[in-house]
Amino acid sequence: MWTEADHSLKKTFKFKDFSEAFGFMTRVALLAEQMNHHPTWTNTWNQVDIVLSTHDAGHTVTDKDRKLAAAIDKMV
Amino acid sequence: MWTEADHSLKKTFKFKDFSEAFGFMTRVALLAEQMNHHPTWTNTWNQVDIVLSTHDAGHTVTDKDRKLAAAIDKMV
Amino acid sequence: MWTEADHSLKKTFKFKDFSEAFGFMTRVALLAEQMNHHPTWTNTWNQVDIVLSTHDAGHTVTDKDRKLAAAIDKMV
Amino acid sequence: MWTEADHSLKKTFKFKDFSEAFGFMTRVALLAEQMNHHPTWTNTWNQVDIVLSTHDAGHTVTDKDRKLAAAIDKMV
Repeated sequence: MWTEADHSLKKTFKFKDFSEAFGFMTRVALLAEQMNHHPTWTNTWNQVDIVLSTHDAGHTVTDKDRKLAAAIDKMV
Repeated sequence: MWTEADHSLKKTFKFKDFSEAFGFMTRVALLAEQMNHHPTWTNTWNQVDIVLSTHDAGHTVTDKDRKLAAAIDKMV
Repeated sequence: MWTEADHSLKKTFKFKDFSEAFGFMTRVALLAEQMNHHPTWTNTWNQVDIVLSTHDAGHTVTDKDRKLAAAIDKMV
Repeated sequence: MWTEADHSLKKTFKFKDFSEAFGFMTRVALLAEQMNHHPTWTNTWNQVDIVLSTHDAGHTVTDKDRKLAAAIDKMV
C-alpha cells in the first residue's frame, strides 16, 4: 500500500537481494521516462523506498503520481 | 533448456514485454560483471537470445559458461 | 554513421568495457520505451550492434527509426 | 570530493537529465555487485546522492568504501 504523507505518496519495496532490487529499479526507470514523471527514491541492498510528488504542482500529490504508483504496482 | 551448438551454450528467453525483458538483461549484466564472464546476446522487444562461449579457451564451452548459465536459470 | 541495408538502419558502437557498453544500453532502453519503438540489438563485451526497422510498416525504415537513431546519436 | 561524515563517505553527482543519471547508476550497480559492497543512494531526476559505509564493521568507513568510491570516481 502507498501511504500519503508530507504531500507525497510513499511505499517501501523489499526484494531477495540487490540484483532483484536493481532489476525492479530499472523497470521503474523505464516507466518514469515513459511517463515523463520521476520518483525520488532510495536504495539500500534489497530495499527500495519510493516517494512520489509533483514538483510542478507545488509539491503535491497529483494524478501523475497516482498513475506512476499504479503502473509500478502492476509490475511487481 | 540450454542447447549446445557451434561450441556455445544457447537459450532463448521470452517475456511479457520489453520492460520485463530489459529488467532481466540488467540482472544478467550484474551476474556477468560479477563473474567476469560475458554473454553474446541479442534482444528484440520481449525476447532475449543468449549465447555463451569462452573466447580465452579457443571459443569452446567451459565451466565459466555452465556456471553463468546456471546462475541465469536460478534467477528466472 | 548509420548504414541502410536489408530494410534497416545499422550502426556499431564500441566502448571501453562492458560497463560503459551496458550503461549506454540502459540509456537506449529508456529512449526506446519513451518513443515506443525498440531496436534489435546485440552486445558482446564492449560492442553494441543496433538494427532499426519498423515491423508495423512491413519491415522498412521509417521516421520512427530515423528519430530513434538521431536520439541515440545525440546521447553518445 | 567525497566528504566523511556520520561514519560514512558521501558525494553528490549531478547529470544533464534522468537518462544520464540512471545510466551512471546502472554502472555503479555493476561495480557494487562486482565488489560485493553496495551503497545507500538516492536519486531525484538528474541528481544521485551516494552514501558509503560498512555495516559489517559496525557502520564505519573501511577500505571497502574507499575502494568503491575510487572506482566510481574513475568511471565519471
